[in-house]
Amino acid sequence: MKIAGTATRSIWLGPDGWSVGIFDQRRLPWAIERMTLRSDHEAAIAIAEMATRGAPMIGAVAAYGLAFGLKVDPSDAGLAASFERLRATRPTAVNLLWALERVRRVVQPLPPGERAAAAHAEAGRICDEDVAMNAAIGEAGLALIRAISARKGGQPVNILTHCNAGWLATVDWGTATAPMYRAHDAGIALHVWVDETRPRNQGALTAFELAEHGIPHSYIVDNAGGLLMQRGEVDMVIVGTDRVTANGDVCNKIGTYLKALAARAHDVPFYVALPSSTYDPATLTGADVPIEERSGEEVSAVTGEGGQKVTVTRSPVRNPAFDITPAALVTGFITEAGIAADAKALAAILAR
Amino acid sequence: MKIAGTATRSIWLGPDGWSVGIFDQRRLPWAIERMTLRSDHEAAIAIAEMATRGAPMIGAVAAYGLAFGLKVDPSDAGLAASFERLRATRPTAVNLLWALERVRRVVQPLPPGERAAAAHAEAGRICDEDVAMNAAIGEAGLALIRAISARKGGQPVNILTHCNAGWLATVDWGTATAPMYRAHDAGIALHVWVDETRPRNQGALTAFELAEHGIPHSYIVDNAGGLLMQRGEVDMVIVGTDRVTANGDVCNKIGTYLKALAARAHDVPFYVALPSSTYDPATLTGADVPIEERSGEEVSAVTGEGGQKVTVTRSPVRNPAFDITPAALVTGFITEAGIAADAKALAAILAR
Repeated sequence: MKIAGTATRSIWLGPDGWSVGIFDQRRLPWAIERMTLRSDHEAAIAIAEMATRGAPMIGAVAAYGLAFGLKVDPSDAGLAASFERLRATRPTAVNLLWALERVRRVVQPLPPGERAAAAHAEAGRICDEDVAMNAAIGEAGLALIRAISARKGGQPVNILTHCNAGWLATVDWGTATAPMYRAHDAGIALHVWVDETRPRNQGALTAFELAEHGIPHSYIVDNAGGLLMQRGEVDMVIVGTDRVTANGDVCNKIGTYLKALAARAHDVPFYVALPSSTYDPATLTGADVPIEERSGEEVSAVTGEGGQKVTVTRSPVRNPAFDITPAALVTGFITEAGIAADAKALAAILAR
Repeated sequence: MKIAGTATRSIWLGPDGWSVGIFDQRRLPWAIERMTLRSDHEAAIAIAEMATRGAPMIGAVAAYGLAFGLKVDPSDAGLAASFERLRATRPTAVNLLWALERVRRVVQPLPPGERAAAAHAEAGRICDEDVAMNAAIGEAGLALIRAISARKGGQPVNILTHCNAGWLATVDWGTATAPMYRAHDAGIALHVWVDETRPRNQGALTAFELAEHGIPHSYIVDNAGGLLMQRGEVDMVIVGTDRVTANGDVCNKIGTYLKALAARAHDVPFYVALPSSTYDPATLTGADVPIEERSGEEVSAVTGEGGQKVTVTRSPVRNPAFDITPAALVTGFITEAGIAADAKALAAILAR
């Protein structure tokens, strides 16, 4: 994907070939600032404080974080300490654990002196694979959008999305956004309804991405989607996910479930885009997923342009960060292996 | 209701016995500032710019506004001009039209010299009747809350509400909040989930009211209600409305519909509190209600403490202000004449 005409990934190696650079997403969309990560501690802070976010990006950053930790202490104890430091940052994100376990599996059998370099190389492979996966998700989703476009005689396809499952959340392309970028590049007329996504307003990131890519879009409050569907102004919903459980339940940013209910009420197709690493067959249902409760400060203070904050309430606040969309409300899963209509099909295509 | 221990209405006569005072709700909950209205123009601006808001308050302010207009020009032409100036401020609010027509019906047959005083007296009656109606709504709703409390063995009854249908939106008591205040005063343990209600964050007003009255509450983003219902943490929903159509469809603040869908999915009772003046049998269904599209500035700039504003997006914005909750999702209507389970019952009890 491009920023100001220049192709870039969301995570890249520094000039030393070892440290990694990421965008500080807390400054976006107002300012494009890059930050450098050199230690497992810096990686953990970047994840915990949401300088970086999105399931695949969290996995990639955590993987590099483990390499950084092993550079300092490649012992079994050092590996365990770094692993735990990184794992504890975001309990809901299954990709985080997946990436950490993948790197650990590679380095555990190795002599300590080889562990850091092997971890670093594995993190690089995780990144390259993520780019390929998202490109494949884009191709699979393109077919869905193309079919709706044809049915509408080329009128713009209205897609609603929640949160940012865009290229900023991945190494490139995004998950939910990949089909939009591919469709736009294929000349299909689109318009995207971008949910603001309180409390952290990640919709502003999605709008920023779409603007950079030239896709028409409208930023709306999270309350608006129901009315838009009532009016027939939404042709499909595509969201990302932090975790899909064995039965097909979808854990995603708080508010996703409300849009899924509305989509069902109006026969609007509701798609969930995910790389296989986000599929978690070890967890049976959404009821088994721990829901992270984040700081009330996210709700009571809204951050806007230039990092300026405004207090919107001094009342007691609750801030659960995710909800569960039951499998029955999902029209299909868009994956790098194709489209799956339900949990059984999802398990089958990902097992290929 | 009380502010800092002092009982007050939301609209009152000034020391001259003619002008009226209201709270400037744009300054709440951060500052309690009163403003004085002396002309139809000032009344129209107060309504249009949402210094005052809520269906019953808009009606009361518009009624006094018509009296002010007639004081300056009591001719038929003056009456028509004031009527139109006030009517045009908020096209969705049926109470506005109801109050204006009620006053016009009283003054039209009178000689011009008597019109202003008669309009002023009628506006006063509208206010007194509103207080009595809301008290009766509170009594009717109290029975519902009491039953849930009994079923829960006295554990706090968790009520979710959207927007502010509180005493600030009425002359006293509020509509959706009246049952809560009555229940609290009756010693029933309550906890209220207060939806933020983007874009204008009227939830902050509701939280302010509840705090002044001592009712436990939590301010939540509009996205959170679905998860809370999934977890069984909501016992009932009570919302206000701007208009209930002949078939029982409910026009209310954008986002209400999403909560109604979630309530139905989890068998949470969904109640709509309204005075009879908000019932609009002349409009057949929600599809016939014009949906006001308000300034995008409401979405792109968030106002917080001290009137401070922060820009949350520079993207294109859409801002529809209301949605329609279909009658089928409504468990019951709480009115001054009692509870009605559906549109037919509503028409019957309000016709008594």
